[in-house]
Amino acid sequence: METPSLSTGADLLVRTLLAADIDTCFANPGTSEMHLVAAIDRAPGMRAVLGLFEGVVTGAADGYARLTEKPAATLLHLGPGLANGLANLHNARKAGTPVLNVVGDHAVRHLQYDAPLASDIDSLAGAMSHWVGRAQTPDAVATRTAEAIAATQGTPGHIATLILPADSAWGLTTTSPALCRNAEVKEPAAIDIETAGAALRKYGSRALLLLGGKALRARSIAEAFAVAEASGCRVAAPGSNARMERGGGLPEVPRIPYPVDAALAFLAEVDCIVLMGAPTPVAFFAYPDKPSVLIPERCRVVKAVAPGVDPQTAMAALASFCAPRGQQLRRAPQEAVIAPSGPLTADSIAQALAHTLPENAIVVDESVTSGRSIYATMSRSGPFTLLGNMGGSIGFGMPVALGAAVACPDRRVLAMVGDGSAFYTEQALWSLARESANATVVIFANHNYAILQGEWRNTGAGPSGKAARDMLTLDRPRADWVSIARGHGVEAERVVDAAALTQALARSYASSGPRLIEVLMA
Amino acid sequence: METPSLSTGADLLVRTLLAADIDTCFANPGTSEMHLVAAIDRAPGMRAVLGLFEGVVTGAADGYARLTEKPAATLLHLGPGLANGLANLHNARKAGTPVLNVVGDHAVRHLQYDAPLASDIDSLAGAMSHWVGRAQTPDAVATRTAEAIAATQGTPGHIATLILPADSAWGLTTTSPALCRNAEVKEPAAIDIETAGAALRKYGSRALLLLGGKALRARSIAEAFAVAEASGCRVAAPGSNARMERGGGLPEVPRIPYPVDAALAFLAEVDCIVLMGAPTPVAFFAYPDKPSVLIPERCRVVKAVAPGVDPQTAMAALASFCAPRGQQLRRAPQEAVIAPSGPLTADSIAQALAHTLPENAIVVDESVTSGRSIYATMSRSGPFTLLGNMGGSIGFGMPVALGAAVACPDRRVLAMVGDGSAFYTEQALWSLARESANATVVIFANHNYAILQGEWRNTGAGPSGKAARDMLTLDRPRADWVSIARGHGVEAERVVDAAALTQALARSYASSGPRLIEVLMA
Repeated sequence: METPSLSTGADLLVRTLLAADIDTCFANPGTSEMHLVAAIDRAPGMRAVLGLFEGVVTGAADGYARLTEKPAATLLHLGPGLANGLANLHNARKAGTPVLNVVGDHAVRHLQYDAPLASDIDSLAGAMSHWVGRAQTPDAVATRTAEAIAATQGTPGHIATLILPADSAWGLTTTSPALCRNAEVKEPAAIDIETAGAALRKYGSRALLLLGGKALRARSIAEAFAVAEASGCRVAAPGSNARMERGGGLPEVPRIPYPVDAALAFLAEVDCIVLMGAPTPVAFFAYPDKPSVLIPERCRVVKAVAPGVDPQTAMAALASFCAPRGQQLRRAPQEAVIAPSGPLTADSIAQALAHTLPENAIVVDESVTSGRSIYATMSRSGPFTLLGNMGGSIGFGMPVALGAAVACPDRRVLAMVGDGSAFYTEQALWSLARESANATVVIFANHNYAILQGEWRNTGAGPSGKAARDMLTLDRPRADWVSIARGHGVEAERVVDAAALTQALARSYASSGPRLIEVLMA
Repeated sequence: METPSLSTGADLLVRTLLAADIDTCFANPGTSEMHLVAAIDRAPGMRAVLGLFEGVVTGAADGYARLTEKPAATLLHLGPGLANGLANLHNARKAGTPVLNVVGDHAVRHLQYDAPLASDIDSLAGAMSHWVGRAQTPDAVATRTAEAIAATQGTPGHIATLILPADSAWGLTTTSPALCRNAEVKEPAAIDIETAGAALRKYGSRALLLLGGKALRARSIAEAFAVAEASGCRVAAPGSNARMERGGGLPEVPRIPYPVDAALAFLAEVDCIVLMGAPTPVAFFAYPDKPSVLIPERCRVVKAVAPGVDPQTAMAALASFCAPRGQQLRRAPQEAVIAPSGPLTADSIAQALAHTLPENAIVVDESVTSGRSIYATMSRSGPFTLLGNMGGSIGFGMPVALGAAVACPDRRVLAMVGDGSAFYTEQALWSLARESANATVVIFANHNYAILQGEWRNTGAGPSGKAARDMLTLDRPRADWVSIARGHGVEAERVVDAAALTQALARSYASSGPRLIEVLMA
């Protein structure tokens, strides 16, 4: 009989991750995680990507997992390190992205002394995780890690946070790496599909098929339009989506507009909505005298996707039911967008982006106000994948672009980021440079919180005074994004007209590694 | 009888703050806080300071309150906005700083729909706050605000978080601003002082009087040394302190060293420790085969300060007991530090800092490994106030410097920040420029996580491989802090020798507004 070999808890954690094909760890370690760093160092096949702020780490894990469809691991330093990563974990949670956080803690015996970095990690983790667990001994590490991995799985994916005390990491154990069970994938129920199909037929043009989650992959979109052709229904998607295939002649899925009045108008004629992986449309924020729910009160709601069912299989089943022929993926021929010239306008920016976008690019959209007019024109690009912010917490764009570039080194990443958002996780630039990420970051520099100025008008408070203006403008001082990018090791340029933007985009795509373009709005 | 006037909940909140002399609000508002922005705009006397990341906001509130000794208010946007501010709230909590957070939430009726930005704000707040409350109606806002203000008070101060749903902010009420009751300040108990005094006399040179919290103000330090002269005891302070008066001939208080072995040696001869506002010394982190508690097992522990007692009054009482004469504040004549020349070394950097430091400067210390040798030399400066990081969460220095500069516009602020820390809240540079803060930021650019390299050696894992090196070095790419500063609107220069550092410091102190100096270590 073989003598059981001794490993540290940290080694077992890393080997359990690798056994589950989790081979990338976005990390910001500290002293309490140093034995995990040592274990990663010893493990062949585990890639560690350093972020100099934890919001970069969790955002990158989100971007990575949206594309690889397997969880990324993060490594975070105690409660404050986790806290710094929570905003982008919130976005990942709302996007249904599987993320596994490993958070180091003080050694179990040390916790009673309330050392400076001690805090209530469990409460912090619980607020943004579907699963929280602790490995209180080295022997428990492998099984708890496997439980955490299993907890990330499902449709949609989940956030799991494993808290690892330092003595569980450095302590020795004879246990073996654990294998995690895969989550059960449910088939769509025939009754759900038949009910949805019958409703679409009955309500015809007053029915809306609302696609969300994995129903926004190319094949599902094609199937949805086949159903629309057969039943007369409309097809749409929420305003933001975790991952959506677009361009290359794929039918264009209209989005529900962000402003409440526009959304109400968009949905005013809908008597029946079939939810295909999307939630019932609600307002992003509440406003005095405006409704929270955006569909009419009379509207019938049909959920086509039960919990645990993949919207892709539900969409395929609905297409077979409504349109047994004709739901194959067809791409329409499309007219290329010509290169623009002249001043930077919403239209010329959109044309520059659509004209230059490489085939199979990954576009991360945190353009906020600047991006709304870009959406339609971009559909005339070649095929691309669009990643949207599902949680609304800003500081999303550049970290997610980092993770997407790590996941897909052969595809170009384009991150479109408003300047009001870019500040929040600007440290991502350093990691983009360190990883030679093939990412182009476009900063829309309007030197305003333009979104908040719109919201200010909604308050009806009238013209803003100095204190309010000071909280709604970013022009004193004006950030110089070219300097900021170069300071972080990323080559950058500033453009002031549409031709220059077009050329700068093309140059960035022709080179490898990251590049930042500051689009200086009037 | 007067007709009751109608105000919004937001107006009442602001007027209740002003009635309690809280007139500064560090803010990062979003849509759900727009009515609070409008109320601040309407209120004469409320200053709002915008931070482009919430860690800047909470860190600035910490620095501000440490100097003004009254709470700063923060304004944060829902759960993710609060989450971004939690790491520096953790530091403020550990420092005993009073901070009042106002966190906007969705309107009460909107919460049920799980809109994108909805999250468990109460759990997030609870992890880092002593008090959490909600104002669920406009009528409740004034009294809940007064309760929150009262909850920040005490010795030490507390963190209070008031969650304000948007409809409580925009809704109308006839209530009036509420007045908050001041916390009761307890006098030191005679028995505590007599026990401490008797112990110091009994143990003599084997007794240690450990000063913490407000016992590190100038008068208390003088009193402590009078007690030491009378009893023969030693005087010391923890390694980090929220606020400590130093320089200008004030007796020098030795600190307990950070490395565990050095701390054990420092405390090896201590048979009795009198805690004057400081906690029992414990290790920052636990290590295999090293103790958590740093005093010898035999050591008697005497707490001279009961909960709710100000260490300053306890120290004064102890001095009256042990040394009824001679505890007045005396400053020894001191030899000025001469200007250094030659290469940048630990000594020459310390000399440059001590030689140039303006009288009554506020020094924020986040220099981590680079700063340890600076401490002793700085005592030969003129009088200054030192603010230390009590929670150990990095990204502390520049935000706290911002708050200190807002609190004390007539004093110069010097922030000493390691490059590994500076990244975490680099957005503070933008607010320093916006507020024309009289702050000099010195970045020690060693392009390493030097602290973590020391911790790596402590693991005993031997030489690091590529994966570990990648997580412990910051040199690929090398950050250019001059570019980063200029990108945020702060003038900056890089120095490579001691004379240049001395001149750059002097230049920064001679000008108004912020300035960054990158100290390029070998």
